[in-house]
Amino acid sequence: MYGLIGKMKTVPGQRDELIDILADGLKDMPGCLSYIVARDPEDPNGIWVTEAWDSKSSHEASLALPSVRDAISRGKPLIAGFGERFETEPVAGHGLPA
Amino acid sequence: MYGLIGKMKTVPGQRDELIDILADGLKDMPGCLSYIVARDPEDPNGIWVTEAWDSKSSHEASLALPSVRDAISRGKPLIAGFGERFETEPVAGHGLPA
Repeated sequence: MYGLIGKMKTVPGQRDELIDILADGLKDMPGCLSYIVARDPEDPNGIWVTEAWDSKSSHEASLALPSVRDAISRGKPLIAGFGERFETEPVAGHGLPA
Repeated sequence: MYGLIGKMKTVPGQRDELIDILADGLKDMPGCLSYIVARDPEDPNGIWVTEAWDSKSSHEASLALPSVRDAISRGKPLIAGFGERFETEPVAGHGLPA
């Protein structure tokens, strides 16, 4: 499996808007096992995204999906920058398909 | 919702052992929506845990469950330390119960 933990910072006041775009664009991505979008409680413009995929190549392929490309193009103007980013290798868990 | 992203460092050579303990102890925790244990690909002793709960109180209550207390007591000697720790507020996602 392949995982990502990443932080984004939005343009002030645009966090909920970006969350909606991400939540809308993340549907039906082949190989995506988990994709959770969260607010950073300590930063009014901070968003955490945690992802688990069956493989790194599924994650890479998702970036070419029309729905994801559309979400990226709509979300991009709302992103002020990126923070921490960690790659992981998920191995076990509750909330992953059996 | 309440979320946690955290890193642990194990005693050298004990990572798989600790992952097994975590994977075993994390079953059937009321209010737990997602709990994914991952290896850190850049640190042979590093483990990432990402969690989503229906509330912070469910997470706190889980620490009193016999299965979790048992996992903690078995896992503790294998933990060399803790790294990053971020609290989050999950709001949307794939891999969360509908």
